[in-house]
Amino acid sequence: MRFLTGVYENSTFVGVVPPFNTNVCINLNEADEKMNGQLTMPNDLHSCIQLGEQFIEKVKEIQNWVQISVENNKYVYPLSEVRILAPITRPTKNILCVGKNYREHAIEMGSVEDIPKHIMMFTKAPTTVIGHLDFIDRHSNVTEQLDYEGELAVIIGKKGKEIKEEEAYDYVFGYTILNDITARDLQSKHKQFFLGKSLDTSCPMGPVIVAKEAIPNPEQLSIETRVNGEVRQKSNTDQMIFTIPNIIATISKGMTLEPGDIIATGTPAGVGKGFKPPRFLQTGDVIEVKIEQIGSLVNEVK
Amino acid sequence: MRFLTGVYENSTFVGVVPPFNTNVCINLNEADEKMNGQLTMPNDLHSCIQLGEQFIEKVKEIQNWVQISVENNKYVYPLSEVRILAPITRPTKNILCVGKNYREHAIEMGSVEDIPKHIMMFTKAPTTVIGHLDFIDRHSNVTEQLDYEGELAVIIGKKGKEIKEEEAYDYVFGYTILNDITARDLQSKHKQFFLGKSLDTSCPMGPVIVAKEAIPNPEQLSIETRVNGEVRQKSNTDQMIFTIPNIIATISKGMTLEPGDIIATGTPAGVGKGFKPPRFLQTGDVIEVKIEQIGSLVNEVK
Repeated sequence: MRFLTGVYENSTFVGVVPPFNTNVCINLNEADEKMNGQLTMPNDLHSCIQLGEQFIEKVKEIQNWVQISVENNKYVYPLSEVRILAPITRPTKNILCVGKNYREHAIEMGSVEDIPKHIMMFTKAPTTVIGHLDFIDRHSNVTEQLDYEGELAVIIGKKGKEIKEEEAYDYVFGYTILNDITARDLQSKHKQFFLGKSLDTSCPMGPVIVAKEAIPNPEQLSIETRVNGEVRQKSNTDQMIFTIPNIIATISKGMTLEPGDIIATGTPAGVGKGFKPPRFLQTGDVIEVKIEQIGSLVNEVK
Repeated sequence: MRFLTGVYENSTFVGVVPPFNTNVCINLNEADEKMNGQLTMPNDLHSCIQLGEQFIEKVKEIQNWVQISVENNKYVYPLSEVRILAPITRPTKNILCVGKNYREHAIEMGSVEDIPKHIMMFTKAPTTVIGHLDFIDRHSNVTEQLDYEGELAVIIGKKGKEIKEEEAYDYVFGYTILNDITARDLQSKHKQFFLGKSLDTSCPMGPVIVAKEAIPNPEQLSIETRVNGEVRQKSNTDQMIFTIPNIIATISKGMTLEPGDIIATGTPAGVGKGFKPPRFLQTGDVIEVKIEQIGSLVNEVK
């Protein structure tokens, strides 16, 4: 299942792209009300995810009902007429990010000494989040070194603490694409990464969250980042140093994970800073992060 | 004005301790409804702060009305019968923290080389927050080096970006006490501070938020931390390397600050790790952080 948050005729809604027609999406809230005669589905994806298994069951029902229903045009929208927002428009805590989780990227950021022995976690403020096709602010008054980082993000689906590696996927709701835009000069100047990672608009996310059932192999997905069409990052999630279960187990050892938490799993080699000379982002640059089975996240720097 | 979030007879409420009787607090939500005949005041402090200047004006009216009203016992509670929660029980983003903002503390953590030239920012997850007299989990399965850090925290009152130092206090709502409990072994093992700073229950806060009008000199407040009655940290906020206006200006250069944001301004020398040999927290230890004009935040390790 492919979930999105969108705007259609000035209303924000949670949608699912049904398997029987990938050119449309169903307004879940409205379809649910029509089907059940009452409102049982929240109208933001974060709250939907908090419903747990029940949410996926409801969506299955709705999809089936819409497929056989004749008068469904009121809550089925052509995707071409929907403005896509970030799937979770406003996370209720910072985005959790794993640093240097691909060997070659760790090396391009310094040397083999930079390959981490233990998971490195930092965060991005919720104010950074933007959606597919939204503009990334160039922030020319604060940084000369704006950079991209294409990443697979994991969305947590269930509250948990001390989660075992072998049970980690029970706590996953799904996956999305995230571009961890970074001001390299601020990142190194302030030592801890937070400030260089938290400029407004520095976290494009989406376009969809794909439920985990549809991606049985999240650790074997090709990932590619293009800037103005030119391939800059090209790798596979099988190259991660710390696996998804390992990340979830490590974070949750002493800290409770909650539904809707977003974990960015790190970026492969090929960031702007890794080139000699470095190739930082400029106004007008268009960045596309593409992950197998999820799609493409496209944003322009303005 | 001294604001708190409390529980009285199983109901959570936002209270103010009135200047005419510091042994009681007024349930703002209920007093407001009684006074105005309708509900205009939110029942959580974060939402109250989002009202801006209007909130302070309303509270002034309520305080005056309660003082002259005869039948006020229904919404004025003896403080001794109120269970205090964290003033903001669930922040909507991570707590912003300044690292090594007192010279002597930077040195005790390493050497003079550790005195930062630029502000160091990291965050604590919202799941860390607990209130006055709540227990701090010892987390003996994940850390052998649990440590305390008494700090002055600034609560943001108004949305702002690119805030000038000279206007920074316009964006402050008030101040509270924060104990930035840290797992030193995780902090150093994972390089970036986030994981070592984000164990559940590692952010005691409160007991009150004092509105800025009552503290004209936030940068000249004595601050003291005691463990089991023994003074461990004793300093003054005038020893901060980066001042409050400087911190606000630096953070907001590229990142929007929002009402209810919490900024912990760093800890003075005297943390457990600074002693030779180190003196980390053990089960049963009682930590008291005391800041002039705010009060005392007391928590036991369990």
